Amino acid sequence: MILRHLLLPEILELLRAGRLNELRDFLIHQPGPEIAELLTTLADHDRVLLFRLLPRHLADEVFSLLEPLFQNRLLEEMAQEEIHQVLTGLPPDDRTALFEELPARVTQRLLGLLSEHDRKRALTLLSYPDGSVGRLMTDRYVQARPEWSVAQALEHLRKTGIDSETMTMIYITDRRGRLTHELLLHRLLLADPAARVADLLEGHVVFLQSLQDQEEAIHLFQKYDLYALPVVDSDGILLGIVTVDDILDVAEEEATEDFHKLATVQPLHVSLKNATLGLLFRKRIGWLLGLVAFNLFTGMGIKLFDTTIAKMAVLVALLPLLIDSGGNAGAQTATLVVRAIATGEIRRGDWWPLFLKEVGVSLSIGLAMAAAAFILGWLLGTLQVASIVALSMVPIVVVGSLTGILLPMLLNRFHLDPATASVPLITSVADIFGVLIYFSIATAVLHT
Amino acid sequence: MILRHLLLPEILELLRAGRLNELRDFLIHQPGPEIAELLTTLADHDRVLLFRLLPRHLADEVFSLLEPLFQNRLLEEMAQEEIHQVLTGLPPDDRTALFEELPARVTQRLLGLLSEHDRKRALTLLSYPDGSVGRLMTDRYVQARPEWSVAQALEHLRKTGIDSETMTMIYITDRRGRLTHELLLHRLLLADPAARVADLLEGHVVFLQSLQDQEEAIHLFQKYDLYALPVVDSDGILLGIVTVDDILDVAEEEATEDFHKLATVQPLHVSLKNATLGLLFRKRIGWLLGLVAFNLFTGMGIKLFDTTIAKMAVLVALLPLLIDSGGNAGAQTATLVVRAIATGEIRRGDWWPLFLKEVGVSLSIGLAMAAAAFILGWLLGTLQVASIVALSMVPIVVVGSLTGILLPMLLNRFHLDPATASVPLITSVADIFGVLIYFSIATAVLHT
Repeated sequence: MILRHLLLPEILELLRAGRLNELRDFLIHQPGPEIAELLTTLADHDRVLLFRLLPRHLADEVFSLLEPLFQNRLLEEMAQEEIHQVLTGLPPDDRTALFEELPARVTQRLLGLLSEHDRKRALTLLSYPDGSVGRLMTDRYVQARPEWSVAQALEHLRKTGIDSETMTMIYITDRRGRLTHELLLHRLLLADPAARVADLLEGHVVFLQSLQDQEEAIHLFQKYDLYALPVVDSDGILLGIVTVDDILDVAEEEATEDFHKLATVQPLHVSLKNATLGLLFRKRIGWLLGLVAFNLFTGMGIKLFDTTIAKMAVLVALLPLLIDSGGNAGAQTATLVVRAIATGEIRRGDWWPLFLKEVGVSLSIGLAMAAAAFILGWLLGTLQVASIVALSMVPIVVVGSLTGILLPMLLNRFHLDPATASVPLITSVADIFGVLIYFSIATAVLHT
Repeated sequence: MILRHLLLPEILELLRAGRLNELRDFLIHQPGPEIAELLTTLADHDRVLLFRLLPRHLADEVFSLLEPLFQNRLLEEMAQEEIHQVLTGLPPDDRTALFEELPARVTQRLLGLLSEHDRKRALTLLSYPDGSVGRLMTDRYVQARPEWSVAQALEHLRKTGIDSETMTMIYITDRRGRLTHELLLHRLLLADPAARVADLLEGHVVFLQSLQDQEEAIHLFQKYDLYALPVVDSDGILLGIVTVDDILDVAEEEATEDFHKLATVQPLHVSLKNATLGLLFRKRIGWLLGLVAFNLFTGMGIKLFDTTIAKMAVLVALLPLLIDSGGNAGAQTATLVVRAIATGEIRRGDWWPLFLKEVGVSLSIGLAMAAAAFILGWLLGTLQVASIVALSMVPIVVVGSLTGILLPMLLNRFHLDPATASVPLITSVADIFGVLIYFSIATAVLHT
């Protein structure tokens, strides 16, 4: 909630009427994030017009707040010199995020517009693997040396720039650049200027490694309730920091990716609103087609039991119930397990007790479901059908649930994404088992 | 990653041997979050023993970092006076979180142990609705008045306590306590002590309202990349602040809840590892049983087409393919939409274009799936069967997908949780439509 709200029709009117000075006066009093949101609602041509009205510092802020998709669209409308300015104003971590999303040839061209220093920095950040902590680093932090006086450190701070909300911590490094301590900025500001920095230091320092997985960084931020964490390389050399605002974004993105994967949608990288029909088709069709193949086995399974089905046609009416129930129970288990792995709640050592508990839970669920299935079987068929359905329900629910825990466990074991154990995949596996269990039991009952 | 790691066997050995002084010396050099994690791995009795060894400030930190479940278990092992100390040391927002999770009678008893002032404060925070911003508030912030001098403000700050990483912002209120501005602490620290606070103020202030939904707070934090946001009541009076570490936790919890709901698991409120068999059963069985009832309609639908099935038994072998495909496509759509609503990516005005796009996407997917289904139909049956299956696939996928978008839309419209449009629910609805469409088309083809 902000104190004044932008009114889109007014803005468009000023823009159309060419009353650009008024518009500029209005905009410079608005918060950057509101302007960024406004830009995403405009047509490409209006967007660049409005963007050009912003004073430099506001333009930098607004650009850094835009999704890479819109950053790219803006860049496409800009002249070379403008692009150079915008890229220079972008914090290194946001620049990495932009380059990640652009086609390689565009990134190449943009890299050419940077200064030698900035290009090197960008290439370094881009060299970290996708999804690693290195990609989130920024060099907007202050470091100091233990042998400095407080006055020296403060002088260094003023030169490096202190007017930033993010700068609450100073990182202390030794002669070789290795991180040794962290120091609250406030403590430095309130200390005797003649004192040595070394005298203010105490305790431990928590840090990330540049090649660590971003998911681990999320867990560390959650565990320590911190605003920023320093990043070091394998020798302990301080490389940069990661701030919690980026972590909040990454946490949301990773959760979204897991949501989509669990429903067999490949990562979109743009918002649903901005995704084109073609993109959505491509991201959705792969697994759907793949799962059709599974149904060859389910179908062959059903054909095996031709004669049983011919003898007792009503069995077919209860087939969806049985295969759905196995799939649903499996979907519950898989979702619980995939999410618990993602939040770092369960680790390898927890598997065995978790598996045993799942055996118990699925047996209880299977029994309760069997009772309900018995009633449904009676309503749609005979007492014999009801017994077959109830008898089948227990093993089907147990097998579905155990598939739901074993599949993500196996994927995780082999360092694959556990979210690949998607709900539709579990459902398809449960189908095959369901058909075989159900009709086998029916055949056995019919022949006794 | 921390510089020194705790070794569980060593700690247990010291504990068993009663070498508590050594253990204490070791513990006081460890970071609070590591000790908190260690406590969760111990037996109840060891846990309270170890907790009692911690010096007061460390004990306060560690307790505030524990999950409410473990906080409760610790409290159960403690004497009245200890409980009083621990509760007093807990920040108000963490205290609210603990009271929320405890049974009402325990909360009542604990409230009785607080001072008059703290009890009032706790009751105020608990009076905010579940899931509202008010529940996350803390009063660990500094406020200042515009008419003060910088020196006065700094003096006030020192008294209120400045040595906190969270304190990067000072909130400025008018005579009636209404929030008017925010001021970076660094700016105050570097200003001329004789200047007036009013001279340092500029720009707008972003704030939350105490009754706002926590999900909206997440979006605002993401949009503004902030570390803390002030909270006001409906008159604009400053009530407290919310910090980003709590927001990161809430974001993860809300995502977890949505994951579980999409798979028809009711919110657990404890980690999967610590959930008992009984709890898991209760949270999972409800929807599973409810969905059994849906299968009455699916079953009755299938029975309607007895004669068609008798004439062409192979149709049954392809039934799972058709109902699964509708369900899978619907699951994709529902997941995309539910997640996009949760992240605030789509709002009411976006519904119509989104719906139209879904019609296009699902038609394309339906056609591609029809081709695959034709091949499968041919493999398992005849050319006629293949045609029936292919013909049925398009409307089934479209209806499944549109259910997947309409159901969360409707739920959202009536202010219900869109995640209730779970994957198994969509699957069950798709089943009914799938059966009717498939066998109707088959009957029509057979009679021509």
